[in-house]
Amino acid sequence: MFDTTFGTYNHALREQIRSWLAEDIGSGDITTATTIPVGSQSTAVIHVKESGVIAGLPVARLVFEVVDPALRFQAKVSDGDHVDKGTVIATVEGSTHSLLTGERLALNLMQRMSGIATKTNAFVTALEGLPVRLVDTRKTTPGHRMLEKYAVRVGGGANHRFGLHDAVMIKDNHIKGAGGIRQAVEASRAAIPHTMKIEVEAESLEQVEEALACGADIIMLDNMAPPLMTEAASLIKSRAPHVIVEASGNVRLDTVRTIAACGVDVISVGGLTYSFNAIDISLDLNAKKGGAPS
Amino acid sequence: MFDTTFGTYNHALREQIRSWLAEDIGSGDITTATTIPVGSQSTAVIHVKESGVIAGLPVARLVFEVVDPALRFQAKVSDGDHVDKGTVIATVEGSTHSLLTGERLALNLMQRMSGIATKTNAFVTALEGLPVRLVDTRKTTPGHRMLEKYAVRVGGGANHRFGLHDAVMIKDNHIKGAGGIRQAVEASRAAIPHTMKIEVEAESLEQVEEALACGADIIMLDNMAPPLMTEAASLIKSRAPHVIVEASGNVRLDTVRTIAACGVDVISVGGLTYSFNAIDISLDLNAKKGGAPS
Amino acid sequence: MFDTTFGTYNHALREQIRSWLAEDIGSGDITTATTIPVGSQSTAVIHVKESGVIAGLPVARLVFEVVDPALRFQAKVSDGDHVDKGTVIATVEGSTHSLLTGERLALNLMQRMSGIATKTNAFVTALEGLPVRLVDTRKTTPGHRMLEKYAVRVGGGANHRFGLHDAVMIKDNHIKGAGGIRQAVEASRAAIPHTMKIEVEAESLEQVEEALACGADIIMLDNMAPPLMTEAASLIKSRAPHVIVEASGNVRLDTVRTIAACGVDVISVGGLTYSFNAIDISLDLNAKKGGAPS
Amino acid sequence: MFDTTFGTYNHALREQIRSWLAEDIGSGDITTATTIPVGSQSTAVIHVKESGVIAGLPVARLVFEVVDPALRFQAKVSDGDHVDKGTVIATVEGSTHSLLTGERLALNLMQRMSGIATKTNAFVTALEGLPVRLVDTRKTTPGHRMLEKYAVRVGGGANHRFGLHDAVMIKDNHIKGAGGIRQAVEASRAAIPHTMKIEVEAESLEQVEEALACGADIIMLDNMAPPLMTEAASLIKSRAPHVIVEASGNVRLDTVRTIAACGVDVISVGGLTYSFNAIDISLDLNAKKGGAPS
Amino acid sequence: MFDTTFGTYNHALREQIRSWLAEDIGSGDITTATTIPVGSQSTAVIHVKESGVIAGLPVARLVFEVVDPALRFQAKVSDGDHVDKGTVIATVEGSTHSLLTGERLALNLMQRMSGIATKTNAFVTALEGLPVRLVDTRKTTPGHRMLEKYAVRVGGGANHRFGLHDAVMIKDNHIKGAGGIRQAVEASRAAIPHTMKIEVEAESLEQVEEALACGADIIMLDNMAPPLMTEAASLIKSRAPHVIVEASGNVRLDTVRTIAACGVDVISVGGLTYSFNAIDISLDLNAKKGGAPS
Amino acid sequence: MFDTTFGTYNHALREQIRSWLAEDIGSGDITTATTIPVGSQSTAVIHVKESGVIAGLPVARLVFEVVDPALRFQAKVSDGDHVDKGTVIATVEGSTHSLLTGERLALNLMQRMSGIATKTNAFVTALEGLPVRLVDTRKTTPGHRMLEKYAVRVGGGANHRFGLHDAVMIKDNHIKGAGGIRQAVEASRAAIPHTMKIEVEAESLEQVEEALACGADIIMLDNMAPPLMTEAASLIKSRAPHVIVEASGNVRLDTVRTIAACGVDVISVGGLTYSFNAIDISLDLNAKKGGAPS
Repeated sequence: MFDTTFGTYNHALREQIRSWLAEDIGSGDITTATTIPVGSQSTAVIHVKESGVIAGLPVARLVFEVVDPALRFQAKVSDGDHVDKGTVIATVEGSTHSLLTGERLALNLMQRMSGIATKTNAFVTALEGLPVRLVDTRKTTPGHRMLEKYAVRVGGGANHRFGLHDAVMIKDNHIKGAGGIRQAVEASRAAIPHTMKIEVEAESLEQVEEALACGADIIMLDNMAPPLMTEAASLIKSRAPHVIVEASGNVRLDTVRTIAACGVDVISVGGLTYSFNAIDISLDLNAKKGGAPS
Repeated sequence: MFDTTFGTYNHALREQIRSWLAEDIGSGDITTATTIPVGSQSTAVIHVKESGVIAGLPVARLVFEVVDPALRFQAKVSDGDHVDKGTVIATVEGSTHSLLTGERLALNLMQRMSGIATKTNAFVTALEGLPVRLVDTRKTTPGHRMLEKYAVRVGGGANHRFGLHDAVMIKDNHIKGAGGIRQAVEASRAAIPHTMKIEVEAESLEQVEEALACGADIIMLDNMAPPLMTEAASLIKSRAPHVIVEASGNVRLDTVRTIAACGVDVISVGGLTYSFNAIDISLDLNAKKGGAPS
Repeated sequence: MFDTTFGTYNHALREQIRSWLAEDIGSGDITTATTIPVGSQSTAVIHVKESGVIAGLPVARLVFEVVDPALRFQAKVSDGDHVDKGTVIATVEGSTHSLLTGERLALNLMQRMSGIATKTNAFVTALEGLPVRLVDTRKTTPGHRMLEKYAVRVGGGANHRFGLHDAVMIKDNHIKGAGGIRQAVEASRAAIPHTMKIEVEAESLEQVEEALACGADIIMLDNMAPPLMTEAASLIKSRAPHVIVEASGNVRLDTVRTIAACGVDVISVGGLTYSFNAIDISLDLNAKKGGAPS
Repeated sequence: MFDTTFGTYNHALREQIRSWLAEDIGSGDITTATTIPVGSQSTAVIHVKESGVIAGLPVARLVFEVVDPALRFQAKVSDGDHVDKGTVIATVEGSTHSLLTGERLALNLMQRMSGIATKTNAFVTALEGLPVRLVDTRKTTPGHRMLEKYAVRVGGGANHRFGLHDAVMIKDNHIKGAGGIRQAVEASRAAIPHTMKIEVEAESLEQVEEALACGADIIMLDNMAPPLMTEAASLIKSRAPHVIVEASGNVRLDTVRTIAACGVDVISVGGLTYSFNAIDISLDLNAKKGGAPS
Repeated sequence: MFDTTFGTYNHALREQIRSWLAEDIGSGDITTATTIPVGSQSTAVIHVKESGVIAGLPVARLVFEVVDPALRFQAKVSDGDHVDKGTVIATVEGSTHSLLTGERLALNLMQRMSGIATKTNAFVTALEGLPVRLVDTRKTTPGHRMLEKYAVRVGGGANHRFGLHDAVMIKDNHIKGAGGIRQAVEASRAAIPHTMKIEVEAESLEQVEEALACGADIIMLDNMAPPLMTEAASLIKSRAPHVIVEASGNVRLDTVRTIAACGVDVISVGGLTYSFNAIDISLDLNAKKGGAPS
Repeated sequence: MFDTTFGTYNHALREQIRSWLAEDIGSGDITTATTIPVGSQSTAVIHVKESGVIAGLPVARLVFEVVDPALRFQAKVSDGDHVDKGTVIATVEGSTHSLLTGERLALNLMQRMSGIATKTNAFVTALEGLPVRLVDTRKTTPGHRMLEKYAVRVGGGANHRFGLHDAVMIKDNHIKGAGGIRQAVEASRAAIPHTMKIEVEAESLEQVEEALACGADIIMLDNMAPPLMTEAASLIKSRAPHVIVEASGNVRLDTVRTIAACGVDVISVGGLTYSFNAIDISLDLNAKKGGAPS
């Protein structure tokens, strides 16, 4: 699985973590600073309070590293693992001050990411055995796109485009603005790099025909009923086998398999990232050796 | 209702919005740039696709203003209003390019904030008539604390502390680290400004007694069963009427009124900000006058 | 022509300009500050000292606007125009202090961009009438990629990918690292969004065959002699008409038309952005009305 | 040779490198991330494809260090060395992912800097044996001034002022604005720190006389024909031996020695930094030991 | 003593130090760079040139660490120690270039902080034996609040609120604006978190009564003569023993003990941070081993 | 008087002001936000509570403008004016929220700057009629150098170099490190731009001779007794009339005229910026028209 966030160049994520820490800490963690002796060392145990698919361990590790590089973080499971309630997923050792200062941010991030991975995984499981790819959308939490798209991959899904910059996606509003699908696709193709794809949203067979005629690389079937979607998908595949067929709109856990059965290549689900239940995760501290009174 | 985010000094929010726009736009919105004629003007209508309590209109206005100060945003309802499915909550007029570039971020923010306000409002409604204050926690989405705490207020709730810096909150881990409630409170009081309060988390009557004895300003009753909570609250009020009693832990819509009836002053609910359903909101564009081909 | 830099959202460019101004101005333009009376107003005339294709007028306008929003910049020609030596391309009116402070940066940028547009235009002219697209590469000046890619478009060229993030480009090093073209393409396709293309660099017919076999979207023929390139291009077009053929390597003004004649769709030329002659541009000031001695 | 950029305090350069990396990498190097196995290690060899004077090795080292501190960079030659085509100038060992991510930026910078050093060196060689200093100007690439001025020094030249802040330079426009050379110099001297020099641009003997009369520290002879320049230089030296004489304007490789022979102390050449041929430099990778499939 | 600045999370202070270094160093320390051989190593001795209470050693350490992590800083005394003229308070060893580049900032900071600690200590000494707390105000040097408040603690004082965000302080202007003390307190209490205190400024017994009546947490007696202040303090203590009494206004070293004797809990003194004499501190260098000529 | 801070390019100062506001305001001015009705308008009067030389009015104007561009600031006196206790120096009209949010920062800055201008002016007055220039040093408050150097000019003084980058200043430590004055000066001159001056610190006539011999541009006589200083100054002037003589060390208001009488050109005084009494300045608010309850 490729990973642009946690790979060789994660400077931007570190800076983001610093700003999130600043949001929580402000001028200082006055409780820890005034109640915990300077020099106090502890071991913290991080465990889940409900079952799910874990995502975000490398992010939690980075949070603690940014707070204090001397903390020792050890993951006990891996991102993508299904865990049961009560499972210890990681331990952290080191300065009690540092542990308590980083705790909330590390948990807030892992709880959200694990919630997304768990939901994604439920959809992927529902699609088991079918040659279809489940993907996310741009309906992500502002500031969290890379982390949320990573969590979708951890849950077994794949990603749609990263933003407005890395693929053309011609929707209803653009079609209206351009005066038609053909006009939009032609204007776009003339101007964009030859390395970019053009996706067109179609709501009818007529629009599918038009998109095919002008050479769209991907055709998105928006909110079509299964029979229509089946017809549209089969039309596309018969005419242009290399064109990718994407389904979108009103995709739920109980409808996703039916949609997949229409013969589409990709199903996109916005709700993966904007409507999920965070997995409850907790950190318990065991003070190890004391320090001088602060 | 006081408002530190949308008031006289909102520079930080503007900068945050710029960085969220950058996350989505990257090197440019290539679809809009290549399909919509330069100079094209439109009116956009923003409407809800399910009922709820609206929050975030001033933030959406700011998003469009940051994208293009020439856009004209008009709110049709106010933050805090209950609206039915289909209600138009705002219109935006101006450059089609600008409208489409700002659309996703504005919607993503309002959808989340309205989800929080709607959930908060359900709890507040459940408490109607009782002299108790419903508050949030620090379990907010990283980077969104001020907006989420604002959404809680819009929904009729109030806020707990803003972060680790503006109140002392002595929890189980601090008590362990300090060697006891008394030690923790005394060390803290000696070191913090006299302008700050000290809150102590108590899990038993013994801990309540200890917190009272050393002069805590707020005592948080953590996860107590109603009879015990009632006894604890009444103990505190009889001994130190100016001490605030807060209840926390396992608060659900079907238990919140019972908890309030124990005689507590404040109930804190983490789930207000980390487990809510976003309200579906949509933007429809009506191209108004054309422009030159881009 | 699409334009992500000068369009609706150019905040990043403004910030870049501020940092470039800071590089030149440091703690202040002490010559202007101490010799020019406060309040002095002037008109500046910007003219070229050699012929060429102009690019960068909107950037120069932005430089002066960032220095002082009260300056009035008027372009006398448009980006893309061929101009002769001596042509006045713009005038700027307003505070003499502001004019002199912004002069150097505005000229440095236009000189470089016009140099790129002029060189690009020479190649495009050499290709006149042929159905081939001339594109740039990632060999741009650090910090100037968007401006330089814009200048290439102004000169009549088109753009290759914007960076490492918006298209897969499998070169010799990746092929070695992955263990073969097939392995590289398959691993990549499984992991990337379905909205992205995969380009493969091929140095022989065998590599072309392999790239075709595993479904590359673009095949780049690297440094092939014309007969071989012709054979490769024709092989690709006969097998997979929708696959784009790109030529690269050792492209000079005197060879570009021969290369195009091999039947390729796209020719990429690194030298457009790293080896060009800046066009000499000058600003002459006419002090208009005096001010008080500073 | 003094070196303000690569010395004890190079934080600003690191930040600059990070932003240049971000320009190229954006949301991630998707080719490397998806084709190269995680953990793959390689050795890269950097060699020149044409002869020249090398500049920028410490910058390339810093680029790789910023990308990944675990990379081991070894320079095989030194900045300032003349090298022939094919010379290996450095090797880098470590993570293949990191190597490929940093490659383009490191090469882009060294290519440009070596181009500047090579051109500067040609001028310096032309001046061999003469007591004259060759210097650059403010016509540098925005964002690259410190690096380009360093490259000039590497090539054997020296630097003019760093920006508008560290020396007064009264040009034609300032003279017009101030009402004369005397007025400009006197106003400036009264206001600037006593630690700063005043340079005056003169186009005639009359202006040289005026500049001498009011005590200029440096007089720049602008675009004078050799006989006039000789007369001007000798006038200055006879009147005020400590005043520095600078020549400027229309300085080419075939005229520079004649200009130097006029008796000037310093010759400034704008073209050193805005019109040079980048030296072609290449990185070849040898995958060393494999890693797990990514 | 709690310490939010030098504790586990001091990233913000490092960034501040970098920007202060940039203010001093600009494009480079040209004196050191050109006169001190590269590789030169030295030991520096930092000593005080007048007696006082030292504050800022950890900040000086951080300054040198930011300049060059290889420098070895050794404090010879501790923050809070009284030292006599001539005392060596620290030594620093390492690169002569680094030492000289960091010298001025490290000294400027310690001189100011020690001046504040010394002045604070004089007040604290004057209050010896009395149960009263001496605190600072918001009249701090912009950009230096955390350091100055730390210096006050080092000198034996305590801190008032950190800023406008962490406690409500209702002054004359707010009372006027709100229409009375009661209106102001009630509006504020309804809107702020229950974790925050409300302080009210009172200039007369009537205002004290009103503040008591509406439940202020802290009452500040502003500029009252001792008899009136005594009466006010005793009124508050008899009515509401948990309310804190603060005295402010016109507090000098010769009046502070009289004010304390009025029965107040806290005395705030703005002059601690805006009117103090910096302690003269000096750095002497002993070049240890030479290096190559730079 | 030249002014690099308040002139055409003051973007950096605005950003600095924003960060200083953030330091004071943090997550919001909760007192103003909760007690002052939204929409309330006021006029504020700013007056001095002790006599002095005013400096900083343009900075105060900028503070209020950054907080709220709709505020109307009117200076009633000018920077550099001597004012008596009670003088109204400015008024500000507009939103009460904005006024109270900006108040403290505006006052803190003007108080400090006026203190510096007042102290400088006392020295300048003591030197009346003598042909000597009074200058500051680098002993400024970190983050405030440009403002403090401006305040010195407002008080009638002049500036020394701005930082380590804009002039060479060879002190005792550099002489030691370089192995002598001659070595230091020669190494430096060979490496620095010809546009920069070299200043040498001398403690004896021998050092003065050496500095003269190697062509220093400025010689600083450090801590010399008046007879020796007179001899040194006269030696320099007789040998090299264009060399500037600076006196430094132990300069007090009661000794400065004696030092000037030694025949020096410039006297530098560190205490101008690190040991001064802030001038007490106050803001009084008159609520003008009410607003809705907030």
